[in-house]
Amino acid sequence: MPPDHDLRRGNFPYLTPVPTRWSDNDMLGHVNNVVYYRYFEAAIVRFLMEEGGLDWVNDPVVAFAVESLCRFHRPLSFPEHLEVGIRIEKIGNSSLVYGLSIFSEGIDAPAATGRFVHVFVDRVSEKSAPIPGPIRTACETFT
Amino acid sequence: MPPDHDLRRGNFPYLTPVPTRWSDNDMLGHVNNVVYYRYFEAAIVRFLMEEGGLDWVNDPVVAFAVESLCRFHRPLSFPEHLEVGIRIEKIGNSSLVYGLSIFSEGIDAPAATGRFVHVFVDRVSEKSAPIPGPIRTACETFT
Amino acid sequence: MPPDHDLRRGNFPYLTPVPTRWSDNDMLGHVNNVVYYRYFEAAIVRFLMEEGGLDWVNDPVVAFAVESLCRFHRPLSFPEHLEVGIRIEKIGNSSLVYGLSIFSEGIDAPAATGRFVHVFVDRVSEKSAPIPGPIRTACETFT
Amino acid sequence: MPPDHDLRRGNFPYLTPVPTRWSDNDMLGHVNNVVYYRYFEAAIVRFLMEEGGLDWVNDPVVAFAVESLCRFHRPLSFPEHLEVGIRIEKIGNSSLVYGLSIFSEGIDAPAATGRFVHVFVDRVSEKSAPIPGPIRTACETFT
Repeated sequence: MPPDHDLRRGNFPYLTPVPTRWSDNDMLGHVNNVVYYRYFEAAIVRFLMEEGGLDWVNDPVVAFAVESLCRFHRPLSFPEHLEVGIRIEKIGNSSLVYGLSIFSEGIDAPAATGRFVHVFVDRVSEKSAPIPGPIRTACETFT
Repeated sequence: MPPDHDLRRGNFPYLTPVPTRWSDNDMLGHVNNVVYYRYFEAAIVRFLMEEGGLDWVNDPVVAFAVESLCRFHRPLSFPEHLEVGIRIEKIGNSSLVYGLSIFSEGIDAPAATGRFVHVFVDRVSEKSAPIPGPIRTACETFT
Repeated sequence: MPPDHDLRRGNFPYLTPVPTRWSDNDMLGHVNNVVYYRYFEAAIVRFLMEEGGLDWVNDPVVAFAVESLCRFHRPLSFPEHLEVGIRIEKIGNSSLVYGLSIFSEGIDAPAATGRFVHVFVDRVSEKSAPIPGPIRTACETFT
Repeated sequence: MPPDHDLRRGNFPYLTPVPTRWSDNDMLGHVNNVVYYRYFEAAIVRFLMEEGGLDWVNDPVVAFAVESLCRFHRPLSFPEHLEVGIRIEKIGNSSLVYGLSIFSEGIDAPAATGRFVHVFVDRVSEKSAPIPGPIRTACETFT
């Protein structure tokens, strides 16, 4: 993972709001740790759809998760307003590494930081496939 | 992460079945990657309750997630029968590192492997606190 | 349930956007029916917090679900933009009946309609308790 | 809804265990009301697969939810062991009405009761289709 000063809000070229739900809080009154991955997913899905034109229902190529990780720096709670930052850390032939941070409104230091690796595969054969052109272009813009 | 041969079923002293739900599958027909963390959580919660006597409602000390990661080796789908393996990889003063694997019934190689770090904190102050004795004892048994 | 013409957008005094998540879609490619209840919950929670000042962590009185129902008129899918409409159909001493509809952006006819009944209870004893004053006032405004 | 004495355990010909998850509990320490519908879904899906041979991935006909409801009689909490009872209340040409109850282990009176309506549709056209033969047969056995 990169050093802490590298994970502040200003270092993420793609920032998107991610709404919290009441049910994201668990018995301990904080957003449950598993739900942070839902926030990452929401941001990545929006990035791929809006910036890269991905169509989850019809595209011949889909993205499978290969690895994910999250470090939890500070508890979050509904109804906080959150943003997820994405920057593309590595573009392979068929794989993408996303650097991720979750920010509370108005705070530059991340509440959580993470990484997510996608591999693109043929929808039918589930064999790896090249990253679709428009997604590759989008990723090159948000490094 | 340890080498692959170290992650097979026989190397996990604590194994517990984790039922899948229809809704764990996502639009792509496989268990969604976020749900693997629910399986890890289910196994760890059961371990702490049944082996370590943790009471999530009344204990003065509770466990907060500090870090988690998962590597996805092979897709899973409801209605597969799964088991999660746990072994304790590090016991600190107030923190625990769990090594984790998810196995399909009858298969020794893991479908996914991961790591999870808990820190124990005082329920009210949310400051770190020593691992409760019965949990420490349980962890020493499952290294 | 009221007649269909009564369930259109213009008949709901409280309307709130409810974001969809990719994972709300199930294997069949539509928002899973259980998730509609999450949308109802999100809208009701926001109504009670923003209009009625409810504090889920500290208030001595909390709201328990007594009954819910949903009729599914038309499939929905992420990434649709949705709104949930609420109108208060009955205000008892300690219970509230909410009429609910889910609307797609720009469409007046509901995609789903429902009802939800809350009873207010003392947080500790879990015995029924009068509806808190600010919530009662809010409800009288949105009938 | 039928009278209370009709909803006890002995009146449900199909009973299936439904495991709870830690994360089913919400901030108030009880199973969240939305999750009861997940339990209903788990039981109905198992019933259709095991008794009626439904294949969610390959069958030309799939089942869409038309209506659901739940009455919450008594709070439940993880790690309770639960069973869901099903009885088929109505078999139409393309629709099914399920009567449902959720039971705590060893208790005859239901913690929650509900109803769920499925309509069978062609997977591609999403037009209603006759209930597949093996499912109809299963339903006739569990009325």
